[in-house]
Amino acid sequence: MRILFVGDVVGDMGMAMIHEYLPQLKRDLKPQVTIVNGENSTPVGRGISYKIYKQLLKDGADVVTMGNHTWDNAELFEFIDDAKRLVRPVNFPGKTPGQGWTKVKVNQQTLAVVNIQGRVFMNQLVDDPFATMADLVPELDTPFVFVDFHGEVTSEKRAFAMRFTGDVSAVVGTHTHVQTSDAQVLDHQTAFLTEVGMTGPADSILGMQADSVITRFENQRPARYTVQTQGPGLLSGCVIDLNDQTGHARSIRSILISPQHPYQS
Amino acid sequence: MRILFVGDVVGDMGMAMIHEYLPQLKRDLKPQVTIVNGENSTPVGRGISYKIYKQLLKDGADVVTMGNHTWDNAELFEFIDDAKRLVRPVNFPGKTPGQGWTKVKVNQQTLAVVNIQGRVFMNQLVDDPFATMADLVPELDTPFVFVDFHGEVTSEKRAFAMRFTGDVSAVVGTHTHVQTSDAQVLDHQTAFLTEVGMTGPADSILGMQADSVITRFENQRPARYTVQTQGPGLLSGCVIDLNDQTGHARSIRSILISPQHPYQS
Amino acid sequence: MRILFVGDVVGDMGMAMIHEYLPQLKRDLKPQVTIVNGENSTPVGRGISYKIYKQLLKDGADVVTMGNHTWDNAELFEFIDDAKRLVRPVNFPGKTPGQGWTKVKVNQQTLAVVNIQGRVFMNQLVDDPFATMADLVPELDTPFVFVDFHGEVTSEKRAFAMRFTGDVSAVVGTHTHVQTSDAQVLDHQTAFLTEVGMTGPADSILGMQADSVITRFENQRPARYTVQTQGPGLLSGCVIDLNDQTGHARSIRSILISPQHPYQS
Amino acid sequence: MRILFVGDVVGDMGMAMIHEYLPQLKRDLKPQVTIVNGENSTPVGRGISYKIYKQLLKDGADVVTMGNHTWDNAELFEFIDDAKRLVRPVNFPGKTPGQGWTKVKVNQQTLAVVNIQGRVFMNQLVDDPFATMADLVPELDTPFVFVDFHGEVTSEKRAFAMRFTGDVSAVVGTHTHVQTSDAQVLDHQTAFLTEVGMTGPADSILGMQADSVITRFENQRPARYTVQTQGPGLLSGCVIDLNDQTGHARSIRSILISPQHPYQS
Ligand SMILES: [Fe+2]
Ligand SMILES: [Fe+2]
Ligand SMILES: [Fe+2]
Ligand SMILES: [Fe+2]
Ligand SMILES: [Fe+2]
Ligand SMILES: [Fe+2]
Ligand SMILES: [Fe+2]
Ligand SMILES: [Fe+2]
Repeated sequence: MRILFVGDVVGDMGMAMIHEYLPQLKRDLKPQVTIVNGENSTPVGRGISYKIYKQLLKDGADVVTMGNHTWDNAELFEFIDDAKRLVRPVNFPGKTPGQGWTKVKVNQQTLAVVNIQGRVFMNQLVDDPFATMADLVPELDTPFVFVDFHGEVTSEKRAFAMRFTGDVSAVVGTHTHVQTSDAQVLDHQTAFLTEVGMTGPADSILGMQADSVITRFENQRPARYTVQTQGPGLLSGCVIDLNDQTGHARSIRSILISPQHPYQS
Repeated sequence: MRILFVGDVVGDMGMAMIHEYLPQLKRDLKPQVTIVNGENSTPVGRGISYKIYKQLLKDGADVVTMGNHTWDNAELFEFIDDAKRLVRPVNFPGKTPGQGWTKVKVNQQTLAVVNIQGRVFMNQLVDDPFATMADLVPELDTPFVFVDFHGEVTSEKRAFAMRFTGDVSAVVGTHTHVQTSDAQVLDHQTAFLTEVGMTGPADSILGMQADSVITRFENQRPARYTVQTQGPGLLSGCVIDLNDQTGHARSIRSILISPQHPYQS
Repeated sequence: MRILFVGDVVGDMGMAMIHEYLPQLKRDLKPQVTIVNGENSTPVGRGISYKIYKQLLKDGADVVTMGNHTWDNAELFEFIDDAKRLVRPVNFPGKTPGQGWTKVKVNQQTLAVVNIQGRVFMNQLVDDPFATMADLVPELDTPFVFVDFHGEVTSEKRAFAMRFTGDVSAVVGTHTHVQTSDAQVLDHQTAFLTEVGMTGPADSILGMQADSVITRFENQRPARYTVQTQGPGLLSGCVIDLNDQTGHARSIRSILISPQHPYQS
Repeated sequence: MRILFVGDVVGDMGMAMIHEYLPQLKRDLKPQVTIVNGENSTPVGRGISYKIYKQLLKDGADVVTMGNHTWDNAELFEFIDDAKRLVRPVNFPGKTPGQGWTKVKVNQQTLAVVNIQGRVFMNQLVDDPFATMADLVPELDTPFVFVDFHGEVTSEKRAFAMRFTGDVSAVVGTHTHVQTSDAQVLDHQTAFLTEVGMTGPADSILGMQADSVITRFENQRPARYTVQTQGPGLLSGCVIDLNDQTGHARSIRSILISPQHPYQS
């Protein structure tokens, strides 16, 4: 089973990169399942809308994952219960609308796609991702499990991946928006990449216009960050191959389309 | 001018990787200046000792940079005033032993090497890196400036690099220990890499044995992390070329020697 | 010299408490200088407006201090340069509008009123309050110095007060909105109170309606907190007496008007 | 039912204050149950030992509560399973030694004593205290419930108390070591005090010698804090009366023995 995962889509340029490159990537890589993180996909870079959710599916996503920005666009509350292809972090506390994982049929197999959030330096006090995942693994009842771990620090992401090596097929990090170069298969079982990176404007800071971000670092006064809508685009992703018998990962390879790395099919 | 930079050397395996590969890298790449981050270079992975400092120089480092672990080994207080090739973060507050930058002669030019620390989610309340650097740039009085920015979050590192684009030759991040894949020259002037990554045991979390790190995430009880001393090694670095007239960066390329990426000269 | 200080005025009920009790307190206590923290004084509990600033002066404040919510109401940018009786934290970084301290004439003496912000767990990365104050003390050039230290943790507030014991007349904490019971004169020189507390609705959490705050703790979803406008009011303050020769504190006494402690003149 | 609670006992001076005043307080106040927070009771101010645990019981404690420093003295692991009168935070994650609550017989009634830890700005990632307590309330199966909520921020403590008003008899905060002046009965049902304060050396910062704490704030270098062993002592506590039929609180009054407030029986 081949999985294509694309990291945090930011704003209109992120959506344009998806529209332009996701069909090409699917044509060239032929994944059975395509997953896209959409927590920053509205034009303002915060949350998701129904229109954008539908557009992501139309452009080729089978499942859309989220993160700490899940609820930034309140429109999600209206459609999340019907959004069968959208998963928000499974360890959000209490009675939370939406689902934390979903299953996708792939020929004879079933892939479970899980979204989970880290706790270190994150702005929400979510439930323990380690304990949550330990409880969830048997419940998923399939050896094919992809986890989008939305977190800030490298140690928590890697500790999570090493804890669940053999239990899940892949752990891929999101949230810091800058891809890491450590794609690897842990113990011949679990594909891991600390951070897949974002999809959106290259000439930006996390997808935002640089000026306001820099100014805020300098003067610490409130600033509304504006999504960058100019300049070249960036797409960050990875492609993962699983053993069709065991669900164990055979390989993981990062994908980066950027001014420095133009797409070559 | 060509600069070779190697990220956070962790423990004995980090030192062994330096000993084995730094001479090869220098022979193959022929940098004029070699800089190594040594904040985790003692056998316990915290701080530096005189013996290790000397070994790093012997193995080819011209300058050793530090970070939040600078003072973890108290022996440094004894020799830092005489350690002309060692720089600790320039924005440590108050009257702090040691120096935050130093200069290296390269033919006709002078390279200033600056170590500076970020503030977001860092465990020390250091002085503002933006204001500190703004004051420092004119004082350095050379167009050849390399900055090791020791910080946690991608936004602060990139905001810093974009703020000082044109003012300094290169900004390379350290501290998260996992290399990012975004090496780039900003505006044809300043080389930037969010995080260069660490040098040490590959089968580890931040260089530490995974078990104790995972267990601590699970039970939140105090744990002494033990440096990993088994398995394959990792070396993370980058090589930067500067225009010899202007000091502007012409290129930056990341270096990764790992089980997935064996060294090829 | 007698100083009356009243802590964070929150919303309309805070303003009503000021309007009702500040004249009484001044009549009964006869302070020469009255200082009020106004960082939460708008109807929504965030920042200050010109109208409210003027109202606070009219109701008896000689100086209005601020804190981390200084810029929450953008109207302040319009009038801060003319607001001679308003001080925002002196250690806000860079070129910041407004002033961090001001002087009030009291008979033959001059009282400097300083607003300064802590760094531990605060949502702005401000300049080092210890270094800032060390530089400021000689510049103030008067032995009568009142400091509103706006900070989260007890250790930082007390460390600051003990560091500047003898250098300033009084250090009174603000920001946590719950008065502490440790009013004391340190070393017969400097009046200290870890936290003076807030002025506003008693039946609230930090001045906000409890329901939305509790719900957010439980489900971690975004919530706009609404200022409580019902129920009894609360006024938190303290009165400090200084030696008219030396500027040293002779006494500090906390003031609390609440449902549990009705005002008795 | 009358409950006496004494806040964080710090070091030898804290133990001396307990030894001197706890018998007096019990004689004068005649509580049926006496609870003492012992998370800082070793001579170094971190954790607890068997000897000290026994001494606290001998001096009059019926139950000893803990907090974030629970495991700082590893000796506790050896005796916690037999320490029937000691409770550590009930929301410590995973399989944690010890118990989070215990029951004390008082005539015909049973008082449950619960220790629970907050999450905001705390150095351990513990389980959700709100969800944990919601599950625990029915399990306790008694209307007489005392909760030591060990947390940093005023909002979380008060939100917790207001959430469980009517469900528990009393919520008293610990951890910040400085008593607040807001003792009150919420809705005629639940006694609440944001922070009870510490018991130990008065001339200190959190019980530690001031010099090293101040120096660390100024230079941000590692420092071992030393417990203050000189000068006057401080005891912080509160006394709570419950309705013997309903378990609802009738009153709460804070207790402070300090240089400013000598003990008067
Ligand atoms: Fe994102
Ligand atoms: Fe995110
Ligand atoms: Fe490091
Ligand atoms: Fe570091
Ligand atoms: Fe406030
Ligand atoms: Fe505040
Ligand atoms: Fe404590
Ligand atoms: Fe504590």
